[in-house]
Amino acid sequence: MKLINLDHISAAPLLPEVKESMIDAINSDLHNPSSQHQAGEAAAERLDAAREAVRQLVGAKDTKEIVFVSGGTESVNHAIKGVAMANQGKGNHIVTTNIEHNAVIRSLKRLSGAGFKVTSLPVDETGRVNPEDVAKAITDKTILVSVMHANNETGTLQPIREIGEITREKNVLFHSDAVDSVGVVPVSVEEMGVDLLSFGANRYYGPHGIGGLYVRKGTRIFPLLEGGVQEHNKRGGTENLIGIIGMGKAAELAIRDMDTRAAHLSELKQYLLDNLPKHLDEYLINTNLEHSLPDLLNVSLKYIEGESVMLMLDGDGIAVSTKSACATGSLRASHVLMSLGLSHADAQGTVVLAWGIDNTKEEMDHFLASVSECVHTLRSMSPLYRNHNG
Amino acid sequence: MKLINLDHISAAPLLPEVKESMIDAINSDLHNPSSQHQAGEAAAERLDAAREAVRQLVGAKDTKEIVFVSGGTESVNHAIKGVAMANQGKGNHIVTTNIEHNAVIRSLKRLSGAGFKVTSLPVDETGRVNPEDVAKAITDKTILVSVMHANNETGTLQPIREIGEITREKNVLFHSDAVDSVGVVPVSVEEMGVDLLSFGANRYYGPHGIGGLYVRKGTRIFPLLEGGVQEHNKRGGTENLIGIIGMGKAAELAIRDMDTRAAHLSELKQYLLDNLPKHLDEYLINTNLEHSLPDLLNVSLKYIEGESVMLMLDGDGIAVSTKSACATGSLRASHVLMSLGLSHADAQGTVVLAWGIDNTKEEMDHFLASVSECVHTLRSMSPLYRNHNG
Repeated sequence: MKLINLDHISAAPLLPEVKESMIDAINSDLHNPSSQHQAGEAAAERLDAAREAVRQLVGAKDTKEIVFVSGGTESVNHAIKGVAMANQGKGNHIVTTNIEHNAVIRSLKRLSGAGFKVTSLPVDETGRVNPEDVAKAITDKTILVSVMHANNETGTLQPIREIGEITREKNVLFHSDAVDSVGVVPVSVEEMGVDLLSFGANRYYGPHGIGGLYVRKGTRIFPLLEGGVQEHNKRGGTENLIGIIGMGKAAELAIRDMDTRAAHLSELKQYLLDNLPKHLDEYLINTNLEHSLPDLLNVSLKYIEGESVMLMLDGDGIAVSTKSACATGSLRASHVLMSLGLSHADAQGTVVLAWGIDNTKEEMDHFLASVSECVHTLRSMSPLYRNHNG
Repeated sequence: MKLINLDHISAAPLLPEVKESMIDAINSDLHNPSSQHQAGEAAAERLDAAREAVRQLVGAKDTKEIVFVSGGTESVNHAIKGVAMANQGKGNHIVTTNIEHNAVIRSLKRLSGAGFKVTSLPVDETGRVNPEDVAKAITDKTILVSVMHANNETGTLQPIREIGEITREKNVLFHSDAVDSVGVVPVSVEEMGVDLLSFGANRYYGPHGIGGLYVRKGTRIFPLLEGGVQEHNKRGGTENLIGIIGMGKAAELAIRDMDTRAAHLSELKQYLLDNLPKHLDEYLINTNLEHSLPDLLNVSLKYIEGESVMLMLDGDGIAVSTKSACATGSLRASHVLMSLGLSHADAQGTVVLAWGIDNTKEEMDHFLASVSECVHTLRSMSPLYRNHNG
């Protein structure tokens, strides 16, 4: 039975062209791009081509502003810790939000232990931060504002451009974790006004374990991984060239196909929104429908556990998640949903639906029928549900 | 014309079985190993199998002691910065040597800027550190000793086991950068007495951009890349599973074939040593022939520039390097060779020869004839050479 992958946020399949490019890279016996002989130069050309594709994907002016890293987590750690360490002479205050990915949260927690002060802003009940709150939080000690672009659990988009105007006016560095938006919706570092942007490759059907950090020219930042002079001296270590080539190909295709993909993804989103009420009752949509990704919906099913739904759907060949795969094993309710004002019980009843360009309406029908049955079964066993309806 | 790769230290070709395993991984549409559905569990099984192969390769007791990282540089940065930050309550002194890779040097330089004190020990003229010097350098403030296993420019091996006895006796954490020895010579973290060991995959014909950090159970260390709970909470970020699977396969083959490989590599080393005098005069061997890798020789050709030799050999289809590929672009003479007491001029005349299991004696003959011609041509144009023989 073919898996119905409604957990693209955890893993999207590689596109056939991406697979081809990586297999070609594997079979090409590429040498070290830093080596000065011809074999090294041939490898460096492949590296340059991928960097150019990625530059275009995020709308950077110069390929020198693109640093290849091992994924979104390294990118975020590099941006936050690297800026903090390099600018501590200027100030020790950082502004962020309550709904960031753990990579941001844990990097900032580490910095708090080293004397930095962090202001974490709330979001409204639709999951968005108010740019005015960012403006008010900035002090003369503020060296960095870090606000994610698209939330990884809800898909809700933040008002990055408005925040970028504020940080520029106040002359504070601005980082955005755009791991879940780059390659899915149009992203331009120039229009957003960010100085640093973190992104991966898997969200646009490239490999895991590779990503990028955009660093605006002139930004004061220390490397996180130090050693050789690779990546314009911003990130040491011999490059994961096979991964980079896959990322470059994925970037190229994401630019080419973004509109057609978005149309398909949005159609599936609307299909889900239209049909969920026909199959389910007593649920909450935690995604801001006005400002969100076209490929993700966060739904809380009242009176039951999201984990149980996930496991039952899994038995039916449908993959969904309940929260970030990075938080697997943690029993705590999602900090993102709690920030939206959900009750603990409702947050625990959440499933994250993240479809992809390979999904169809027929698969959505299968999901809707299956989830309806799961919810019915689980609620029939739920004391919460009985009490509520008793 | 097939390239004669005598620059395996910069890039070794992937073995056919490694390519196959990576291509299979690419075509398997593996999901996220952290996901709790069946697709995630299938991916996690592949991850576990690779971790077990790597555990065996370095002789660790428990797979939980193996952390997958993005390569040697991340591994070294993680070990050094992670231990320093986690143990600063205990002390602020670190002991190392003058011949470490830039990943170690630059990590320690960064820590020096944050209040740590570093003692860097000299090596003797054969390139080895004296364990007694390590013992003397340790104070009650010492939290870490970091000494590389095999030097990446000379292939000389350090007395790690002797140093491990000292660090255990003095109860100081011991890290070894073994990026250039793991998979090439037998390595056992238990026999070496190290608490942390850094290694990659390309030295044993696995991919670049993937590596490991051995962390002995109970070692106090902070993560460097923080976010999700991957890698037993020691390293966040969705795994580069394709790279990890390639690394696992390479590890498996390295264990199986280490002896036969070493025999072939040592034979080529002896062949070079026997035949160099027939083709060249006035050169220095900077590798400690008693304690060194079987696949690397560092040779200084007097009166000429190593870079010129490298470029001329390149024209003849032979790849060699002059120093670490990570140091490309730096005009400074190798700090490793200067530490051995070489003159600046001799250090600049250096070529690093690093062969592999795919090289043959016929290729060595081709190299010997070619290098002899290069050296003759370059010396005929060298004022240094004319002055010396004038």
